Amino acid sequence: MPRPEEAAPHVSAIRGSVYSALGHKLAAHKGEVFPFHVGDTWLEPPHGCLMQDLLQSEWPDLNRYTQPHGMKRLLEALVTRVKARTGEHVGTDNILVTGGATAGLSNAAGAVISPGEEVLILAPHWPLIDGIVRCYGGRPVPVPFIGVADSPESAVEVVREHLTERTVGLYMSTPNNPTGQVLSRPIVEALVAWAQREDLWIFSDEVYEDYVFEGEHTYARPLAPERTFSVHSFSKALGMAGYRCGFITGPAPIMAELRKTHTHSVYSASTPAQVAALRALEGSGTAWIEAARELYRQAGEGAAKVLGVPKPEGSTFLFIDVKEKLDERGLAGFLDDCANEGLFAAPGPSFGPYPEHIRICYTATRPDNVRRGVLILARLLGRTVSEET
Amino acid sequence: MPRPEEAAPHVSAIRGSVYSALGHKLAAHKGEVFPFHVGDTWLEPPHGCLMQDLLQSEWPDLNRYTQPHGMKRLLEALVTRVKARTGEHVGTDNILVTGGATAGLSNAAGAVISPGEEVLILAPHWPLIDGIVRCYGGRPVPVPFIGVADSPESAVEVVREHLTERTVGLYMSTPNNPTGQVLSRPIVEALVAWAQREDLWIFSDEVYEDYVFEGEHTYARPLAPERTFSVHSFSKALGMAGYRCGFITGPAPIMAELRKTHTHSVYSASTPAQVAALRALEGSGTAWIEAARELYRQAGEGAAKVLGVPKPEGSTFLFIDVKEKLDERGLAGFLDDCANEGLFAAPGPSFGPYPEHIRICYTATRPDNVRRGVLILARLLGRTVSEET
Repeated sequence: MPRPEEAAPHVSAIRGSVYSALGHKLAAHKGEVFPFHVGDTWLEPPHGCLMQDLLQSEWPDLNRYTQPHGMKRLLEALVTRVKARTGEHVGTDNILVTGGATAGLSNAAGAVISPGEEVLILAPHWPLIDGIVRCYGGRPVPVPFIGVADSPESAVEVVREHLTERTVGLYMSTPNNPTGQVLSRPIVEALVAWAQREDLWIFSDEVYEDYVFEGEHTYARPLAPERTFSVHSFSKALGMAGYRCGFITGPAPIMAELRKTHTHSVYSASTPAQVAALRALEGSGTAWIEAARELYRQAGEGAAKVLGVPKPEGSTFLFIDVKEKLDERGLAGFLDDCANEGLFAAPGPSFGPYPEHIRICYTATRPDNVRRGVLILARLLGRTVSEET
Repeated sequence: MPRPEEAAPHVSAIRGSVYSALGHKLAAHKGEVFPFHVGDTWLEPPHGCLMQDLLQSEWPDLNRYTQPHGMKRLLEALVTRVKARTGEHVGTDNILVTGGATAGLSNAAGAVISPGEEVLILAPHWPLIDGIVRCYGGRPVPVPFIGVADSPESAVEVVREHLTERTVGLYMSTPNNPTGQVLSRPIVEALVAWAQREDLWIFSDEVYEDYVFEGEHTYARPLAPERTFSVHSFSKALGMAGYRCGFITGPAPIMAELRKTHTHSVYSASTPAQVAALRALEGSGTAWIEAARELYRQAGEGAAKVLGVPKPEGSTFLFIDVKEKLDERGLAGFLDDCANEGLFAAPGPSFGPYPEHIRICYTATRPDNVRRGVLILARLLGRTVSEET
């Protein structure tokens, strides 16, 4: 049983680098690089939210722990925000401030999943959710959904097919990473009602809630507050990914358990990150998001047009079928061809059973860099590019 | 199986507030408060390491993720630091930058513990290690050790008694939190050699390595690099607890697994925290630590003298037997009496089977506050206080 050099088997089963095995090529590339493989933004955080703006004299506890639950003033601001967005009356005991949405989902998974239990994951899906479930001995069950289910009835049919007696939860994400699609209200309602009937936890990943270009975002928690975790991020919403701050809302009794997993995984979220988030909520964050949404919409539409794919409804990604350009080397060969031109994309298998897709993030770098990179990708895909673009 | 409102049983078994159930009293107390229950420092971080010192123009990626492994330049500085401290030639593949030492231990536990496996924990112990092991379905086995084992032979005897066929690891901490004792080199060597014979992982918590007042710190990893995780913190060492940055070193093959658990629990440590740590390592950190060590030594000696207990050999805590002052209300009653005077101490049972002890941190607040609080505690303990103190 004791066995240095061997990991716990459920951890060994997690893929290592989920985004790309091409990191060394990126580092070594001569010439312009197009790092579209990671979800990020070229924008700086809102006014007043840079680290240099956080004065020790104004925030004398900036270098000290907050309570594990989160800074009191931030928790209170989040109560107001949740009410404004969803209409739901939550208390601070429904909220946990975490080191990003990743940490929020990890804490929720750790609190509710026992080894061997299964979580249905609507696919294509955010890459890390697979490993998050595995870290606690759970079994992620990808359910090809986006582009498959096109009505409330078919949505329920698709998830029902994967239900077993060991299923304990359903993970969904809208606006979707990687496809950029927005789940319609009837589909979200049907999925939530089904999860309720089957007595499942719902993990609703809403980190792109602010980035809907067409349609509207549907909040899952008000539909089933007794079983829904809703995960939010300041990373994507406000250009603060490196600070590591987000939050998760859920039913009060289980949130007491999440405070335990959080305390024992990191103690408290970074205090400066929490203060920056608070300043964004109380200050210029809303205006920043309005402006960013328009910039992201333009970037997404522009990229989609060049690549000849439908424009995204939300999030910051395009998920592109590259089947027609794969040769005997498969997807790795195509990604290698891209890397040779300085272009880095995330491989489809990181998002579920998609061996012929790639994902690009069209907000990862400045629009001019994105434009040039997308033109290279269009050429590699053999797409005709009009001169205007 | 699906059961909203119920947590995974191994998480339910974790105690909620590990430090003190008296938080509401602290918030409500009129008059001077003596919050000695949390390990912290009154000092501000070293010169150049405040958030206001981190200029976006100088660190243009301050708001962006680093690689999950850690910022390259910080990893390289840590390779140099480890070599300078321990003589060990490590590479960056032996190191993971984490959101504090708590996160480092959590990632290590997550990577190597399978449900049902046991970890021996030298007690009294840092409170969170119990829940960290439980978060991954492991079973923490507290081994009363400090004050029990006083020779290499008795050290091995004591741990051997708790070994079972499910034991996979040994956790030890020197300088010790909560007792302030420093394990001697022969004892550390004997424990490591025994763990090696029994093929156990070693979790060596060395977050107070810089705060040894008597004797010397013994690094465990050079004695058994193939099985030892060594955990370090910038929180305690440099007055940056709220930033959340630390690091863990371990055998390269298993560190690849820790990078997975880290990626899936938080993705990357806070970038500003990593930059502050780097600046401390490259700049004024060493001088800061020298000065802090002397201040902490004085604070510890002063508190010990007033309380009539042996002066601490290291760390920032005193662990005090209060048995003689317990009445029918038990320890809770004594802690309540303290709280009524604005004094907050951590209860002994957080540190293992110690229902008649309390822990105080004598660096949590400014020396004048500590002095006044310790005088109150001495009075409550009925200790004679000389006029000098």
